[in-house]
Amino acid sequence: MAARQRNLANRISIWARRSEVVDQLQELPWCDESSTDLETCCKDAELIILCAPVKRIIELSQRIAPLLNSTPIITDVGSVKADICRDCEDAFGHQAHFIGSHPMAGSEKTGLENAQDDLFEGKSCFVTPTDDSDTQATNTVSAFWEALGSNIYTESPERHDAIVAQISHVPHILAAALASYLSREETDAQNLCGNGLKDTTRIASGSPELWQEIISQNGTEILKSLDQFQKEIDAFKETIVNEDTAKTIEFLARGKEFRDSIQ
Amino acid sequence: MAARQRNLANRISIWARRSEVVDQLQELPWCDESSTDLETCCKDAELIILCAPVKRIIELSQRIAPLLNSTPIITDVGSVKADICRDCEDAFGHQAHFIGSHPMAGSEKTGLENAQDDLFEGKSCFVTPTDDSDTQATNTVSAFWEALGSNIYTESPERHDAIVAQISHVPHILAAALASYLSREETDAQNLCGNGLKDTTRIASGSPELWQEIISQNGTEILKSLDQFQKEIDAFKETIVNEDTAKTIEFLARGKEFRDSIQ
Repeated sequence: MAARQRNLANRISIWARRSEVVDQLQELPWCDESSTDLETCCKDAELIILCAPVKRIIELSQRIAPLLNSTPIITDVGSVKADICRDCEDAFGHQAHFIGSHPMAGSEKTGLENAQDDLFEGKSCFVTPTDDSDTQATNTVSAFWEALGSNIYTESPERHDAIVAQISHVPHILAAALASYLSREETDAQNLCGNGLKDTTRIASGSPELWQEIISQNGTEILKSLDQFQKEIDAFKETIVNEDTAKTIEFLARGKEFRDSIQ
Repeated sequence: MAARQRNLANRISIWARRSEVVDQLQELPWCDESSTDLETCCKDAELIILCAPVKRIIELSQRIAPLLNSTPIITDVGSVKADICRDCEDAFGHQAHFIGSHPMAGSEKTGLENAQDDLFEGKSCFVTPTDDSDTQATNTVSAFWEALGSNIYTESPERHDAIVAQISHVPHILAAALASYLSREETDAQNLCGNGLKDTTRIASGSPELWQEIISQNGTEILKSLDQFQKEIDAFKETIVNEDTAKTIEFLARGKEFRDSIQ
Protein backbone atom coordinates (compact mmCIF):
# COMPACT_ATOMS: atom_id res chain seq x y z
CA MET A 1 0.00 0.00 0.00
CA ALA A 2 2.82 2.36 0.95
CA ALA A 3 4.94 1.32 -2.05
CA ARG A 4 2.09 1.95 -4.47
CA GLN A 5 1.27 5.30 -2.93
CA ARG A 6 4.88 6.40 -3.51
CA ASN A 7 5.04 4.86 -6.97
CA LEU A 8 7.91 2.53 -6.10
CA ALA A 9 6.78 -0.51 -8.09
CA ASN A 10 5.47 -1.27 -11.57
CA ARG A 11 3.71 -4.39 -10.44
CA ILE A 12 2.84 -5.46 -6.91
CA SER A 13 2.18 -9.15 -6.43
CA ILE A 14 1.19 -10.45 -3.01
CA TRP A 15 1.36 -14.02 -1.79
CA ALA A 16 -0.90 -15.04 1.08
CA ARG A 17 -1.30 -18.35 2.82
CA ARG A 18 -5.09 -18.29 2.97
CA SER A 19 -7.40 -17.92 -0.01
CA GLU A 20 -9.77 -15.60 1.94
CA VAL A 21 -6.91 -13.12 2.23
CA VAL A 22 -6.10 -13.51 -1.48
CA ASP A 23 -9.75 -12.68 -2.23
CA GLN A 24 -9.58 -9.59 -0.02
CA LEU A 25 -6.33 -8.47 -1.64
CA GLN A 26 -7.77 -8.76 -5.13
CA GLU A 27 -10.37 -6.14 -4.20
CA LEU A 28 -7.71 -3.62 -3.22
CA PRO A 29 -6.68 -0.93 -5.72
CA TRP A 30 -2.98 -1.02 -4.77
CA CYS A 31 -2.52 -4.76 -5.33
CA ASP A 32 -1.98 -5.89 -8.97
CA GLU A 33 -1.97 -9.61 -8.35
CA SER A 34 -2.51 -11.96 -5.45
CA SER A 35 -2.15 -15.71 -5.10
CA THR A 36 -1.64 -18.59 -2.67
CA ASP A 37 0.94 -19.92 -5.13
CA LEU A 38 4.50 -18.81 -4.33
CA GLU A 39 5.84 -19.34 -7.85
CA THR A 40 3.18 -17.05 -9.39
CA CYS A 41 4.14 -14.25 -7.01
CA CYS A 42 7.94 -14.65 -7.22
CA LYS A 43 8.17 -15.02 -10.99
CA ASP A 44 10.24 -12.25 -12.64
CA ALA A 45 10.45 -10.39 -9.32
CA GLU A 46 13.06 -7.67 -8.81
CA LEU A 47 12.41 -7.20 -5.09
CA ILE A 48 10.77 -9.73 -2.77
CA ILE A 49 9.79 -8.81 0.79
CA LEU A 50 9.19 -11.68 3.18
CA CYS A 51 6.54 -10.57 5.68
CA ALA A 52 5.81 -13.36 8.13
CA PRO A 53 6.49 -14.43 11.71
CA VAL A 54 10.24 -14.89 12.26
CA LYS A 55 10.24 -18.70 12.10
CA ARG A 56 8.20 -18.81 8.93
CA ILE A 57 10.57 -16.40 7.16
CA ILE A 58 13.30 -19.06 7.09
CA GLU A 59 10.84 -21.74 5.90
CA LEU A 60 9.55 -19.39 3.19
CA SER A 61 13.05 -18.69 1.90
CA GLN A 62 13.69 -22.44 1.57
CA ARG A 63 10.47 -22.87 -0.39
CA ILE A 64 11.07 -19.83 -2.60
CA ALA A 65 14.72 -20.52 -3.52
CA PRO A 66 14.05 -23.25 -6.14
CA LEU A 67 11.26 -21.18 -7.75
CA LEU A 68 13.32 -18.10 -8.61
CA ASN A 69 14.01 -17.19 -12.25
CA SER A 70 15.30 -13.61 -11.94
CA THR A 71 18.09 -13.32 -9.24
CA PRO A 72 15.97 -10.86 -7.23
CA ILE A 73 16.95 -8.84 -4.19
CA ILE A 74 15.14 -10.34 -1.20
CA THR A 75 14.57 -8.78 2.19
CA ASP A 76 12.30 -9.48 5.17
CA VAL A 77 10.74 -7.65 8.11
CA GLY A 78 11.61 -10.03 10.95
CA SER A 79 12.33 -8.61 14.41
CA VAL A 80 15.38 -10.85 15.00
CA LYS A 81 18.13 -10.93 12.41
CA ALA A 82 21.10 -13.23 13.15
CA ASP A 83 19.31 -16.57 12.54
CA ILE A 84 17.27 -15.22 9.63
CA CYS A 85 20.21 -13.64 7.79
CA ARG A 86 22.36 -16.75 8.17
CA ASP A 87 19.65 -19.23 7.15
CA CYS A 88 18.19 -17.13 4.34
CA GLU A 89 21.63 -16.48 2.82
CA ASP A 90 22.22 -20.23 2.94
CA ALA A 91 18.84 -20.99 1.39
CA PHE A 92 19.20 -18.58 -1.53
CA GLY A 93 22.89 -19.16 -2.36
CA HIS A 94 23.51 -17.51 -5.75
CA GLN A 95 19.82 -17.45 -6.71
CA ALA A 96 19.11 -14.18 -4.94
CA HIS A 97 20.71 -11.40 -2.88
CA PHE A 98 19.28 -11.62 0.60
CA ILE A 99 19.64 -8.56 2.87
CA GLY A 100 17.76 -8.50 6.19
CA SER A 101 15.58 -5.58 7.24
CA HIS A 102 13.67 -4.69 10.37
CA PRO A 103 11.34 -1.71 10.09
CA MET A 104 10.56 -0.53 13.64
CA ALA A 105 6.95 0.23 12.78
CA GLY A 106 3.62 -1.34 13.55
CA SER A 107 1.64 -1.89 16.68
CA GLU A 108 -0.02 -4.65 18.64
CA LYS A 109 -2.66 -4.74 15.88
CA THR A 110 -2.21 -7.20 13.03
CA GLY A 111 -3.95 -8.13 9.79
CA LEU A 112 -4.87 -6.50 6.51
CA GLU A 113 -7.63 -4.42 8.09
CA ASN A 114 -5.03 -2.50 10.10
CA ALA A 115 -2.86 -1.64 7.07
CA GLN A 116 -1.74 2.02 6.85
CA ASP A 117 0.14 3.55 3.93
CA ASP A 118 2.03 5.94 6.22
CA LEU A 119 3.15 3.21 8.61
CA PHE A 120 6.87 3.67 7.95
CA GLU A 121 6.99 7.46 7.89
CA GLY A 122 9.47 8.87 10.36
CA LYS A 123 10.14 5.40 11.79
CA SER A 124 13.50 3.70 12.19
CA CYS A 125 14.41 0.82 9.90
CA PHE A 126 17.36 -1.50 10.40
CA VAL A 127 19.12 -2.89 7.34
CA THR A 128 21.46 -5.72 8.35
CA PRO A 129 24.00 -6.77 5.70
CA THR A 130 26.55 -9.49 6.50
CA ASP A 131 30.20 -9.67 5.36
CA ASP A 132 28.98 -11.64 2.34
CA SER A 133 26.30 -9.14 1.27
CA ASP A 134 26.30 -7.46 -2.13
CA THR A 135 26.76 -3.70 -1.58
CA GLN A 136 24.41 -2.71 -4.38
CA ALA A 137 21.68 -4.98 -3.03
CA THR A 138 22.16 -3.45 0.44
CA ASN A 139 21.82 0.02 -1.06
CA THR A 140 18.67 -0.93 -2.96
CA VAL A 141 17.02 -2.30 0.18
CA SER A 142 17.98 0.81 2.15
CA ALA A 143 16.70 3.07 -0.63
CA PHE A 144 13.37 1.20 -0.64
CA TRP A 145 12.70 1.76 3.06
CA GLU A 146 13.98 5.30 2.84
CA ALA A 147 11.52 5.99 0.01
CA LEU A 148 8.73 4.83 2.37
CA GLY A 149 9.84 7.52 4.82
CA SER A 150 12.02 5.50 7.20
CA ASN A 151 15.31 6.47 8.82
CA ILE A 152 17.89 3.79 8.01
CA TYR A 153 20.22 2.20 10.57
CA THR A 154 22.77 -0.17 9.05
CA GLU A 155 24.07 -2.73 11.56
CA SER A 156 25.33 -6.32 11.47
CA PRO A 157 22.60 -8.89 12.26
CA GLU A 158 24.29 -9.70 15.60
CA ARG A 159 24.57 -6.07 16.68
CA HIS A 160 20.96 -5.52 15.60
CA ASP A 161 19.83 -8.36 17.85
CA ALA A 162 21.70 -6.94 20.86
CA ILE A 163 20.13 -3.51 20.27
CA VAL A 164 16.54 -4.71 19.85
CA ALA A 165 16.85 -6.96 22.91
CA GLN A 166 17.36 -3.72 24.84
CA ILE A 167 14.96 -1.37 23.14
CA SER A 168 12.15 -3.72 22.14
CA HIS A 169 12.26 -7.29 23.48
CA VAL A 170 13.05 -6.53 27.13
CA PRO A 171 10.45 -3.70 27.21
CA HIS A 172 7.92 -6.17 25.81
CA ILE A 173 8.78 -8.77 28.44
CA LEU A 174 8.53 -6.19 31.23
CA ALA A 175 5.10 -5.08 30.03
CA ALA A 176 3.96 -8.71 29.79
CA ALA A 177 5.45 -9.58 33.20
CA LEU A 178 3.79 -6.57 34.82
CA ALA A 179 0.42 -7.50 33.30
CA SER A 180 0.88 -11.15 34.24
CA TYR A 181 1.89 -10.23 37.81
CA LEU A 182 -1.13 -7.96 38.24
CA SER A 183 -3.46 -10.65 36.93
CA ARG A 184 -2.38 -12.87 39.84
CA GLU A 185 -3.11 -10.27 42.52
CA GLU A 186 -6.55 -9.92 44.05
CA THR A 187 -6.84 -6.33 43.03
CA ASP A 188 -9.40 -4.96 40.64
CA ALA A 189 -6.46 -3.52 38.70
CA GLN A 190 -8.15 -3.56 35.29
CA ASN A 191 -10.84 -1.15 36.44
CA LEU A 192 -8.81 0.85 38.93
CA CYS A 193 -5.78 1.68 36.88
CA GLY A 194 -4.99 5.10 35.48
CA ASN A 195 -3.46 6.03 32.14
CA GLY A 196 0.03 5.24 33.42
CA LEU A 197 -0.55 1.51 33.68
CA LYS A 198 -2.46 1.47 30.39
CA ASP A 199 0.56 2.94 28.59
CA THR A 200 3.12 0.85 30.43
CA THR A 201 1.38 -2.43 29.58
CA ARG A 202 -0.02 -1.58 26.13
CA ILE A 203 2.43 -3.76 24.18
CA ALA A 204 1.51 -6.79 26.30
CA SER A 205 -1.52 -7.03 23.97
CA GLY A 206 0.75 -8.25 21.17
CA SER A 207 0.39 -11.79 19.84
CA PRO A 208 1.84 -14.35 22.30
CA GLU A 209 2.73 -16.69 19.42
CA LEU A 210 4.59 -14.02 17.44
CA TRP A 211 6.48 -12.88 20.53
CA GLN A 212 7.36 -16.38 21.63
CA GLU A 213 9.14 -16.85 18.31
CA ILE A 214 10.95 -13.53 18.62
CA ILE A 215 12.04 -14.30 22.17
CA SER A 216 13.19 -17.81 21.30
CA GLN A 217 15.36 -16.49 18.42
CA ASN A 218 16.97 -13.84 20.62
CA GLY A 219 17.13 -15.59 23.99
CA THR A 220 20.82 -15.02 24.69
CA GLU A 221 20.72 -11.27 24.10
CA ILE A 222 17.44 -10.93 26.00
CA LEU A 223 18.83 -12.71 29.05
CA LYS A 224 21.93 -10.46 28.97
CA SER A 225 19.78 -7.36 28.76
CA LEU A 226 17.39 -8.55 31.51
CA ASP A 227 20.41 -9.02 33.78
CA GLN A 228 21.55 -5.45 33.13
CA PHE A 229 18.04 -4.18 33.80
CA GLN A 230 18.02 -6.21 37.03
CA LYS A 231 21.03 -4.27 38.29
CA GLU A 232 19.10 -1.05 37.77
CA ILE A 233 16.14 -2.36 39.81
CA ASP A 234 18.40 -3.71 42.56
CA ALA A 235 20.20 -0.37 42.86
CA PHE A 236 16.85 1.38 43.06
CA LYS A 237 15.56 -0.94 45.78
CA GLU A 238 18.67 0.00 47.77
CA THR A 239 17.75 3.68 47.56
CA ILE A 240 14.26 2.86 48.95
CA VAL A 241 15.61 0.70 51.77
CA ASN A 242 18.18 3.37 52.66
CA GLU A 243 15.59 6.16 52.30
CA ASP A 244 18.18 7.95 50.18
CA THR A 245 16.23 10.95 48.84
CA ALA A 246 19.04 12.32 46.68
CA LYS A 247 19.75 8.98 44.98
CA THR A 248 16.04 8.28 44.41
CA ILE A 249 15.65 11.64 42.69
CA GLU A 250 18.84 11.07 40.70
CA PHE A 251 17.50 7.72 39.45
CA LEU A 252 14.09 9.15 38.53
CA ALA A 253 15.70 12.17 36.88
CA ARG A 254 17.95 9.95 34.73
CA GLY A 255 14.85 8.06 33.56
CA LYS A 256 12.99 11.30 32.88
CA GLU A 257 15.90 12.77 30.93
CA PHE A 258 16.05 9.69 28.71
CA ARG A 259 12.29 9.60 28.14
CA ASP A 260 12.07 13.33 27.42
CA SER A 261 14.78 12.92 24.78
CA ILE A 262 12.74 10.41 22.75
CA GLN A 263 11.51 12.03 19.56
CA MET B 1 -12.71 24.03 36.70
CA ALA B 2 -14.53 20.69 36.69
CA ALA B 3 -16.55 21.63 39.80
CA ARG B 4 -17.68 24.91 38.25
CA GLN B 5 -18.59 23.27 34.99
CA ARG B 6 -20.89 20.86 36.86
CA ASN B 7 -22.26 23.57 39.15
CA LEU B 8 -21.04 21.90 42.34
CA ALA B 9 -20.03 25.03 44.25
CA ASN B 10 -21.44 28.45 45.02
CA ARG B 11 -18.06 29.98 45.52
CA ILE B 12 -14.67 28.58 44.49
CA SER B 13 -11.69 30.00 46.33
CA ILE B 14 -8.21 28.85 45.40
CA TRP B 15 -5.08 29.18 47.48
CA ALA B 16 -1.74 29.16 45.68
CA ARG B 17 1.77 29.45 47.03
CA ARG B 18 3.04 31.86 44.39
CA SER B 19 1.51 35.22 43.58
CA GLU B 20 2.05 34.72 39.80
CA VAL B 21 -0.32 31.75 39.99
CA VAL B 22 -2.83 33.80 42.01
CA ASP B 23 -2.70 36.44 39.25
CA GLN B 24 -3.32 33.78 36.59
CA LEU B 25 -6.19 32.29 38.58
CA GLN B 26 -7.89 35.64 38.95
CA GLU B 27 -8.16 35.86 35.16
CA LEU B 28 -10.01 32.56 34.95
CA PRO B 29 -13.82 32.58 34.70
CA TRP B 30 -14.30 29.51 36.93
CA CYS B 31 -12.35 30.88 39.90
CA ASP B 32 -14.24 33.31 42.22
CA GLU B 33 -11.36 34.20 44.49
CA SER B 34 -7.66 33.46 44.73
CA SER B 35 -5.05 34.31 47.32
CA THR B 36 -1.67 33.37 48.77
CA ASP B 37 -3.28 33.72 52.21
CA LEU B 38 -4.60 30.44 53.59
CA GLU B 39 -7.07 32.07 56.00
CA THR B 40 -8.78 34.04 53.20
CA CYS B 41 -9.33 30.86 51.22
CA CYS B 42 -10.40 28.60 54.11
CA LYS B 43 -12.81 31.04 55.76
CA ASP B 44 -16.41 29.79 55.84
CA ALA B 45 -15.47 26.82 53.64
CA GLU B 46 -17.77 23.80 53.42
CA LEU B 47 -15.36 21.62 51.47
CA ILE B 48 -11.59 22.06 51.27
CA ILE B 49 -9.49 20.04 48.83
CA LEU B 50 -5.76 19.88 49.54
CA CYS B 51 -3.95 19.61 46.20
CA ALA B 52 -0.23 19.48 46.74
CA PRO B 53 2.69 17.04 46.71
CA VAL B 54 2.18 14.32 49.36
CA LYS B 55 4.61 15.74 51.92
CA ARG B 56 3.18 19.21 51.69
CA ILE B 57 -0.39 17.98 52.29
CA ILE B 58 0.46 17.15 55.90
CA GLU B 59 2.24 20.49 56.40
CA LEU B 60 -0.73 22.31 54.88
CA SER B 61 -3.21 20.58 57.20
CA GLN B 62 -1.15 21.68 60.20
CA ARG B 63 -1.15 25.28 58.97
CA ILE B 64 -4.85 25.27 58.10
CA ALA B 65 -6.20 23.68 61.33
CA PRO B 66 -5.95 26.80 63.55
CA LEU B 67 -7.49 29.01 60.82
CA LEU B 68 -10.78 27.13 60.45
CA ASN B 69 -14.08 28.74 61.53
CA SER B 70 -16.66 26.42 59.92
CA THR B 71 -15.92 22.68 60.69
CA PRO B 72 -15.52 21.93 56.99
CA ILE B 73 -15.11 18.57 55.30
CA ILE B 74 -11.52 18.33 54.09
CA THR B 75 -10.07 15.94 51.56
CA ASP B 76 -6.87 15.73 49.52
CA VAL B 77 -5.59 14.21 46.28
CA GLY B 78 -2.37 12.58 47.49
CA SER B 79 -1.20 9.32 45.89
CA VAL B 80 -0.30 7.68 49.21
CA LYS B 81 -2.87 7.59 51.99
CA ALA B 82 -1.81 5.91 55.27
CA ASP B 83 0.58 8.67 56.46
CA ILE B 84 -1.63 11.48 55.18
CA CYS B 85 -4.87 10.17 56.72
CA ARG B 86 -3.24 9.57 60.11
CA ASP B 87 -1.41 12.91 60.26
CA CYS B 88 -4.24 15.00 58.83
CA GLU B 89 -6.80 13.49 61.21
CA ASP B 90 -4.42 14.32 64.04
CA ALA B 91 -3.89 17.86 62.79
CA PHE B 92 -7.57 18.70 62.41
CA GLY B 93 -8.93 17.00 65.52
CA HIS B 94 -12.50 18.24 65.98
CA GLN B 95 -12.01 21.32 63.79
CA ALA B 96 -12.78 19.48 60.56
CA HIS B 97 -13.74 16.08 59.09
CA PHE B 98 -10.78 14.82 57.13
CA ILE B 99 -11.39 12.02 54.59
CA GLY B 100 -8.56 11.08 52.19
CA SER B 101 -9.12 10.82 48.43
CA HIS B 102 -6.97 9.72 45.53
CA PRO B 103 -8.40 10.43 42.10
CA MET B 104 -6.53 8.21 39.60
CA ALA B 105 -6.46 10.88 36.95
CA GLY B 106 -3.84 13.16 35.53
CA SER B 107 -0.72 12.61 33.51
CA GLU B 108 2.98 13.38 33.56
CA LYS B 109 2.02 17.01 32.76
CA THR B 110 1.59 19.44 35.65
CA GLY B 111 0.57 23.06 36.14
CA LEU B 112 -2.44 25.26 35.55
CA GLU B 113 -1.86 25.35 31.79
CA ASN B 114 -2.62 21.60 31.61
CA ALA B 115 -5.94 21.85 33.49
CA GLN B 116 -8.87 19.98 31.91
CA ASP B 117 -12.46 20.12 33.11
CA ASP B 118 -13.11 16.51 32.04
CA LEU B 119 -10.03 15.14 33.81
CA PHE B 120 -11.98 12.93 36.21
CA GLU B 121 -14.58 11.58 33.83
CA GLY B 122 -14.64 7.81 33.73
CA LYS B 123 -11.58 7.61 36.01
CA SER B 124 -11.27 5.72 39.27
CA CYS B 125 -11.19 7.61 42.54
CA PHE B 126 -10.26 6.12 45.90
CA VAL B 127 -11.96 7.45 49.02
CA THR B 128 -10.16 6.21 52.13
CA PRO B 129 -12.05 6.64 55.42
CA THR B 130 -10.55 5.33 58.66
CA ASP B 131 -12.34 3.71 61.63
CA ASP B 132 -12.69 7.22 63.08
CA SER B 133 -14.22 8.82 60.01
CA ASP B 134 -17.63 10.47 59.99
CA THR B 135 -19.91 8.52 57.64
CA GLN B 136 -21.69 11.56 56.30
CA ALA B 137 -18.40 13.29 55.54
CA THR B 138 -17.23 10.16 53.70
CA ASN B 139 -20.45 10.15 51.67
CA THR B 140 -20.08 13.84 50.81
CA VAL B 141 -16.52 13.36 49.57
CA SER B 142 -17.57 10.32 47.50
CA ALA B 143 -20.53 12.24 46.07
CA PHE B 144 -18.23 15.10 45.08
CA TRP B 145 -15.88 12.92 43.02
CA GLU B 146 -18.81 10.99 41.62
CA ALA B 147 -20.37 14.25 40.45
CA LEU B 148 -17.12 14.95 38.56
CA GLY B 149 -17.61 11.67 36.71
CA SER B 150 -15.36 9.35 38.73
CA ASN B 151 -15.97 5.75 39.78
CA ILE B 152 -15.55 5.50 43.54
CA TYR B 153 -13.52 2.82 45.32
CA THR B 154 -13.78 2.95 49.11
CA GLU B 155 -10.80 1.31 50.85
CA SER B 156 -8.88 1.78 54.09
CA PRO B 157 -5.78 3.98 53.71
CA GLU B 158 -3.52 0.93 54.25
CA ARG B 159 -5.28 -1.24 51.68
CA HIS B 160 -5.22 1.71 49.26
CA ASP B 161 -1.45 1.96 49.62
CA ALA B 162 -0.97 -1.76 48.94
CA ILE B 163 -3.13 -1.52 45.81
CA VAL B 164 -1.49 1.57 44.32
CA ALA B 165 1.97 0.13 44.99
CA GLN B 166 0.96 -2.61 42.55
CA ILE B 167 -1.00 -0.70 39.95
CA SER B 168 0.80 2.65 39.96
CA HIS B 169 4.03 2.93 41.93
CA VAL B 170 5.74 -0.26 40.72
CA PRO B 171 4.74 0.43 37.10
CA HIS B 172 6.26 3.91 37.50
CA ILE B 173 9.48 2.50 38.91
CA LEU B 174 9.71 -0.07 36.10
CA ALA B 175 9.26 2.63 33.46
CA ALA B 176 11.88 4.81 35.17
CA ALA B 177 14.27 1.87 35.60
CA LEU B 178 13.91 0.87 31.95
CA ALA B 179 14.57 4.43 30.80
CA SER B 180 17.49 4.77 33.21
CA TYR B 181 18.96 1.43 32.09
CA LEU B 182 18.70 2.38 28.40
CA SER B 183 20.34 5.74 29.05
CA ARG B 184 23.45 3.85 30.25
CA GLU B 185 23.75 1.68 27.16
CA GLU B 186 25.64 2.84 24.10
CA THR B 187 22.65 2.45 21.89
CA ASP B 188 20.94 5.25 20.05
CA ALA B 189 17.73 4.08 21.73
CA GLN B 190 16.00 7.47 21.76
CA ASN B 191 16.04 7.66 17.97
CA LEU B 192 15.74 3.99 17.19
CA CYS B 193 12.83 3.03 19.34
CA GLY B 194 9.35 2.25 18.12
CA ASN B 195 6.00 3.10 19.64
CA GLY B 196 6.27 0.21 22.10
CA LEU B 197 9.13 1.72 24.06
CA LYS B 198 7.53 5.16 23.92
CA ASP B 199 4.39 3.82 25.59
CA THR B 200 6.22 1.64 28.08
CA THR B 201 8.39 4.49 29.35
CA ARG B 202 5.94 7.41 29.01
CA ILE B 203 5.29 7.82 32.75
CA ALA B 204 9.03 8.08 33.41
CA SER B 205 8.58 11.71 32.31
CA GLY B 206 6.80 12.48 35.57
CA SER B 207 8.36 14.83 38.12
CA PRO B 208 11.25 13.11 39.98
CA GLU B 209 10.60 15.23 43.07
CA LEU B 210 6.89 14.36 43.22
CA TRP B 211 7.62 10.68 42.71
CA GLN B 212 10.41 10.58 45.25
CA GLU B 213 7.91 11.75 47.87
CA ILE B 214 5.33 9.17 46.80
CA ILE B 215 7.91 6.38 46.86
CA SER B 216 9.28 7.41 50.24
CA GLN B 217 5.77 7.40 51.78
CA ASN B 218 4.96 3.96 50.38
CA GLY B 219 8.37 2.24 50.51
CA THR B 220 7.28 -0.88 52.38
CA GLU B 221 4.41 -1.73 50.03
CA ILE B 222 6.51 -0.92 46.98
CA LEU B 223 9.32 -3.24 48.06
CA LYS B 224 6.78 -6.03 48.69
CA SER B 225 5.24 -5.54 45.28
CA LEU B 226 8.66 -5.32 43.53
CA ASP B 227 9.54 -8.69 45.10
CA GLN B 228 6.35 -10.25 43.74
CA PHE B 229 7.08 -8.79 40.32
CA GLN B 230 10.61 -10.19 40.57
CA LYS B 231 9.21 -13.71 40.89
CA GLU B 232 7.33 -13.20 37.64
CA ILE B 233 10.51 -12.12 35.83
CA ASP B 234 12.55 -14.97 37.32
CA ALA B 235 9.94 -17.52 36.22
CA PHE B 236 9.98 -16.04 32.75
CA LYS B 237 13.78 -16.17 32.51
CA GLU B 238 13.50 -19.87 33.31
CA THR B 239 11.20 -20.39 30.33
CA ILE B 240 13.77 -18.70 28.08
CA VAL B 241 16.69 -20.71 29.47
CA ASN B 242 14.69 -23.95 29.13
CA GLU B 243 13.42 -22.95 25.66
CA ASP B 244 9.97 -23.88 26.95
CA THR B 245 7.70 -22.77 24.11
CA ALA B 246 4.43 -23.68 25.83
CA LYS B 247 5.30 -21.87 29.06
CA THR B 248 6.55 -18.80 27.23
CA ILE B 249 3.28 -18.56 25.31
CA GLU B 250 1.29 -19.17 28.52
CA PHE B 251 3.12 -16.28 30.23
CA LEU B 252 2.63 -13.92 27.30
CA ALA B 253 -1.03 -14.95 26.94
CA ARG B 254 -1.69 -14.25 30.63
CA GLY B 255 -0.24 -10.76 30.18
CA LYS B 256 -2.27 -10.20 27.02
CA GLU B 257 -5.49 -11.36 28.66
CA PHE B 258 -4.98 -8.93 31.54
CA ARG B 259 -4.11 -6.01 29.24
CA ASP B 260 -7.00 -6.69 26.88
CA SER B 261 -9.37 -6.59 29.85
CA ILE B 262 -8.40 -3.03 30.81
CA GLN B 263 -11.21 -0.66 29.95
